[in-house]
Amino acid sequence: MEGKELKSLDELIRQNLTGDDLLEFNRIHYGRKDNHELEIKKENIQYGSKNNFEISCYDFPANKEELRKPRIVKVGLIQHSIAIPTDKPIIEQRSAIFEKVKKIIEIAADEGVNVLCLQEAWSMPFAFCTREKKPWCEFAESVIEGPSTLFLKELASTYGMVIISPILERDETHSDTIWNTAVVINEMGKVIGKHRKNHIPRVGDFNESTYYFEGNTGHPVFETTFGRIAINICYGRHHPLNWLMFGVNGAEIVFNPSATVAGLSEHLWAVEARNAAIANSYFTCAINRVGTESFPNEFTSGDGKPAHKEFGHFYGSSYVTAPDGSRTPGLSRVKDGLLIAQLDLNMCRQIKDKWGFCMTQRLDLYANSLNEAIKHDFIPQRLPKN
Amino acid sequence: MEGKELKSLDELIRQNLTGDDLLEFNRIHYGRKDNHELEIKKENIQYGSKNNFEISCYDFPANKEELRKPRIVKVGLIQHSIAIPTDKPIIEQRSAIFEKVKKIIEIAADEGVNVLCLQEAWSMPFAFCTREKKPWCEFAESVIEGPSTLFLKELASTYGMVIISPILERDETHSDTIWNTAVVINEMGKVIGKHRKNHIPRVGDFNESTYYFEGNTGHPVFETTFGRIAINICYGRHHPLNWLMFGVNGAEIVFNPSATVAGLSEHLWAVEARNAAIANSYFTCAINRVGTESFPNEFTSGDGKPAHKEFGHFYGSSYVTAPDGSRTPGLSRVKDGLLIAQLDLNMCRQIKDKWGFCMTQRLDLYANSLNEAIKHDFIPQRLPKN
Repeated sequence: MEGKELKSLDELIRQNLTGDDLLEFNRIHYGRKDNHELEIKKENIQYGSKNNFEISCYDFPANKEELRKPRIVKVGLIQHSIAIPTDKPIIEQRSAIFEKVKKIIEIAADEGVNVLCLQEAWSMPFAFCTREKKPWCEFAESVIEGPSTLFLKELASTYGMVIISPILERDETHSDTIWNTAVVINEMGKVIGKHRKNHIPRVGDFNESTYYFEGNTGHPVFETTFGRIAINICYGRHHPLNWLMFGVNGAEIVFNPSATVAGLSEHLWAVEARNAAIANSYFTCAINRVGTESFPNEFTSGDGKPAHKEFGHFYGSSYVTAPDGSRTPGLSRVKDGLLIAQLDLNMCRQIKDKWGFCMTQRLDLYANSLNEAIKHDFIPQRLPKN
Repeated sequence: MEGKELKSLDELIRQNLTGDDLLEFNRIHYGRKDNHELEIKKENIQYGSKNNFEISCYDFPANKEELRKPRIVKVGLIQHSIAIPTDKPIIEQRSAIFEKVKKIIEIAADEGVNVLCLQEAWSMPFAFCTREKKPWCEFAESVIEGPSTLFLKELASTYGMVIISPILERDETHSDTIWNTAVVINEMGKVIGKHRKNHIPRVGDFNESTYYFEGNTGHPVFETTFGRIAINICYGRHHPLNWLMFGVNGAEIVFNPSATVAGLSEHLWAVEARNAAIANSYFTCAINRVGTESFPNEFTSGDGKPAHKEFGHFYGSSYVTAPDGSRTPGLSRVKDGLLIAQLDLNMCRQIKDKWGFCMTQRLDLYANSLNEAIKHDFIPQRLPKN
C-alpha cells in the first residue's frame, strides 16, 4: 500500500517550486518564508534512518519582551504504525509497539524534548472499525497501573520529560467502563491527571461509539514545568467549542492525538488544528497515526463500502501550528516519525495583544445564545423571504 | 504595487505540477482531484477581459436522493478595487465604484447567478485605517434609502437576484449611530433585513473600533427563494462561535465579505472560512477586497510601522468551500473578479448525516461551560503539576 502513496505533499512542493516562487508559497501557505528548521544530531538521523523513522525539528521564536524572559519549550510528536499483524496475541502486539516507540522516545530525549505526545490509542491497532468486542477490549488498561503507564512513567522520569499517553482506558472504579483517554505523566514519572475524549465519531470505519462514551472530564488544562498543556483527542478536532474551552481554561499548547485516514479527512487535516491555533492564540500539535491496518474478520462501514478487512491509509502528516498561524511542514504520509518543535510560549500572549481574538470573543453573547439553542422549544433566528 | 505581486498561488501550483502530482495536490489540498470547473460564455470572458475582471465558475454537486430533488443555487462573489483616488469627492468615488461593479453584476446575471454578495464596505475605500472622521463618515448611508441600496434594489429586481450589500450604515432612527452592516435585498428588490458585524478588529491598520460598535443583530439567517443564507462580516471570520451560531440558526450558505491585507492575514485566509464550512456543514463564500488604497493623510498603525499613507495590499483570493470541506481555487490576488459557484444545497444535510458534526456537538455541555466562564469569579479548570 505505502509504495503507491505519496510520501509528502510538502516535499512535493519543495521539489517543484524554486526561488521566489517557493518563498511566496511558504509565506502564503505556511505563514513564513523560512521554515526555521533546526539541526538534528547526525547520529540521531542515522539511528532514525536505520530504524525506519524520520526526524525533523523547527523553531518558533517570539519577540523579545522587557519584563518577561523567553519561555522556551521543546515539544515532541510521535507518529507510528503498528509493529506486528493484528492476529497476533495482544501482549505481543503491545510489546512490539513499546519496543519501536521506545527507540523514538530515546531520540526525543537526546534532542532535549520536554513534552512528548503519542498518537491516539498508541499502544494498539485502531480496532474500533471492527465493532468486535473480543479481543480488542482486552487492550483497555488502567490509567494508573496499566502497562502503557508503567512503561512511560519510567521513561518520563529517566528523561525528565512530560509524556502524554493516549490509551484505551479501563475504569475499574466505575463499573469497568471503557474510555478513550489521554494520561498525563509529569517529568518525575507521576500521573498528574487524565482527559477523556469529548466527541466520539460515527463515520466511515470509525465505529468508536460501540466501545466508549463521550468524555466526562470537561476541558482540563495541566500545569506543567514546561507550560500549560491540554489534549483534544482526535474527533474533537472537528469541534471548535472543544478547542475554545481549552483556551478559556488557559492552555498554551493543545495536543491533538489522532487516528484518521485518507479518503475521509485528509483535506481537512491541514485546516482544523491550524484554525484552532489561530482562533485561540495557542500552539496546536496535530499527530496522526501512520500506515494501513488489516483485521482478521471483515467489517462493514458507515459509507457503504463492501465488507472489508483493511482500514484505509492512516496518512501521518503530523504538524505544529503557532498562535500566529504559521506552521511546520508535516511529517511523512507513510513513515514513522518524530516531529520536534521549539516553542517560545511568550508568543501566545503577544498574539493575543496583537490580534485581539480573545478580547473580542463576546463569550457572554454566546453563553446566552447557547442557553437558548439547547432548549427543546428553541426557535432559530430566521427572517422571512418577503 | 500589483506588478510585483504574485497573481495567484493556485495558478502557481497549476503551472508547476503535472499529471499525478497535480491530482494528488488537488485531492489533499482542495479536497477533490477535479475542480469541477464550469464553462463561462465566451462573450462574457471577453467582456471581463476588456473591463479588467476575471470570471471563474465551479460546480459542487451532491448525491442523488430518493425523496428530495436537488436544490441547485448559483452564488456569485465579487471582489473589486476602488475606482478612483481617495482624495476625490465622495460622490464621485462612489459613482465610479457603482459603475465598475454594475458591469460585473450584469455578467453575473447573464451567467444565471441567484445570490450575489459584494465585499465588505464595497461602495467606499477602506478608510478606517485613518481614524479620521472627516470625510469618511459621509460614506455612511441608510439601509433602506441609501444610494447603495437604491442602486442594488434595481439590479436585484431586474435580474431576479438576491443581493447582499455590505455597507457603512447610518442609523438615523437610533441617534445617527454608525454600523458595519450587510443589507439583504431579495430578488424582487425588497430589503428583507440586515446584519451588523459582530466582532470589530483593533489590529494593524484596522482601526475600525473608532467608527462603529459590536453588532446588535444576533445571528440572523435569511430565508430566500434560493436557500437559507447568512453573513459573517470580515473579522467575525476569526471567531468560531460566530460561525457556529449561523449554523445553529439553520444557514446553508454563509457569506464572509471581507477586507484584509497581505502581511497580516494571508496565511489565515485559506484556513478560517474553510474550517467554518467543515465544522458547521454549510457552504462558505469568502470574499476579499483587492488592490492597494492610499489616503491623503499619513496614519499610524497598531503594529509599530512608521506613519504611512498606504494600506497594505488587499489580496483578493475569494473562494468557496462546500460542507464536505472541498473548495474552489481562489480568484486573483491582484485583479477584480467574479467567482461563481453552483451549489446543490442538499449536500449540507448529506454531510451532517455522514460526518455527524452537528449531532456530536454537545451544545448543552458548552452552554454550561460558557455560563461559568463569563463569571467574574470564574476559576479555570487547571490541574496542578505535581
